Amino acid sequence: MSQNKKPELYTSLSPALLKLYDITASVVVIIDVLRATSTIATALYNGAKEIIPVESVNDCIRIGKQMNAITAGERDGKVAEGLQYGNSPFEYPESFIDKKTLVLTTTNGTKLLHMALSNGAHEIITGSFANLDAVCLHLIKKNKPVLLACAAWKDRINIEDTLFAGAVINQIKQHFTINCDASQMAEGLFLEAREDLYEFMKQKEASHYKRLTSFGLEKDIRHCLTSNTANVLPLYKEGKLTRG
Amino acid sequence: MSQNKKPELYTSLSPALLKLYDITASVVVIIDVLRATSTIATALYNGAKEIIPVESVNDCIRIGKQMNAITAGERDGKVAEGLQYGNSPFEYPESFIDKKTLVLTTTNGTKLLHMALSNGAHEIITGSFANLDAVCLHLIKKNKPVLLACAAWKDRINIEDTLFAGAVINQIKQHFTINCDASQMAEGLFLEAREDLYEFMKQKEASHYKRLTSFGLEKDIRHCLTSNTANVLPLYKEGKLTRG
Repeated sequence: MSQNKKPELYTSLSPALLKLYDITASVVVIIDVLRATSTIATALYNGAKEIIPVESVNDCIRIGKQMNAITAGERDGKVAEGLQYGNSPFEYPESFIDKKTLVLTTTNGTKLLHMALSNGAHEIITGSFANLDAVCLHLIKKNKPVLLACAAWKDRINIEDTLFAGAVINQIKQHFTINCDASQMAEGLFLEAREDLYEFMKQKEASHYKRLTSFGLEKDIRHCLTSNTANVLPLYKEGKLTRG
Repeated sequence: MSQNKKPELYTSLSPALLKLYDITASVVVIIDVLRATSTIATALYNGAKEIIPVESVNDCIRIGKQMNAITAGERDGKVAEGLQYGNSPFEYPESFIDKKTLVLTTTNGTKLLHMALSNGAHEIITGSFANLDAVCLHLIKKNKPVLLACAAWKDRINIEDTLFAGAVINQIKQHFTINCDASQMAEGLFLEAREDLYEFMKQKEASHYKRLTSFGLEKDIRHCLTSNTANVLPLYKEGKLTRG
């Protein structure tokens, strides 16, 4: 074993906790499993040239026009007025998204990404079960401190983002120093759930499971809880997410 | 079964998340297992007349003098300069504390208690494994909305406070409406740990386990993880905690 000290890994279960961590030397993984970061991985995997995450519907419309790009985003489970597409990974097959630019507005994930940026993150990537292995391999290869940053729901901790943090920790923990109760709890949750993540979400009556199934989106939930369907590394630079 | 809607129960895993919850109609349970709320229950159980929680060492000294009371509190695991006693429940046997007033300064628990007060909590009580059953019985009897509020460590989520929230939820959940992922996660953690809470904390390398054992306080940890050693209900009113 190397005598060098392993880099530290922390997990922030809500954007309201991000400020507790010095991220200036860290790779920050933005996690918004249902469904922003799953859709980002899927669109890039299917050939999207770039994805521009923006906070407001108005910005989405304005930038979409400027760049002649596809605009997408939802509010309360429906395509937002003035936008063309929604937040479902199924809306972005290769036949549609290849070589195109997507301007995407999401509530929780985009806000967190911009917080990480303004807090001086060394590097920002996005993670979801869709690109689990790509994220893990990148974190091991970089050998830098890591913050797994869950987007949660309006700052309230959610099960699915915590599960993904736990899945990452479970794969890469031997490469990091982990002195973080939230990370231990996330890995424990993942180990409890790993046999069937969908069934676990259902049994636990996860708030997002209930919200999305009320819109008939069981298929989206199942897809977003499936590992390695879109193994790319979305890397955020100069306002854009591209394949890293 | 009653046709009335059951009151809601939420769990806040860090003081930084307290603001997400409207607590004006709620019983707020302040949870600081290692060791503030365990010591509060123990001292009241052993006959203390009242406990005055204060934020700073200076306030502790000043109010202690005014009231001719015992002053207690630690900073970084040692009795703070100018105070008489520490944060260990073992320092407050009946022979010492009976009929006395204790002015206690703690970092995380007291700050959270004052936040709950300024956010307009309907009622504030303190909880720990020492008084688990008293807390559960009170919450069921009151039949009001509940917020289980973990003191955490400098806003970072910790395992032991989450475990206690989970223990409460596990006992009283049939009396409440729970639409809160943090509560589900807390109960899951408790169910995973319940066989041996101390061994669980050790295995998970809980940050507070490491901090306190480095001061030789294994005995305190074991005691603070034991249920119903001091079944009183500490109720906060007009700046004082007394038996409710």
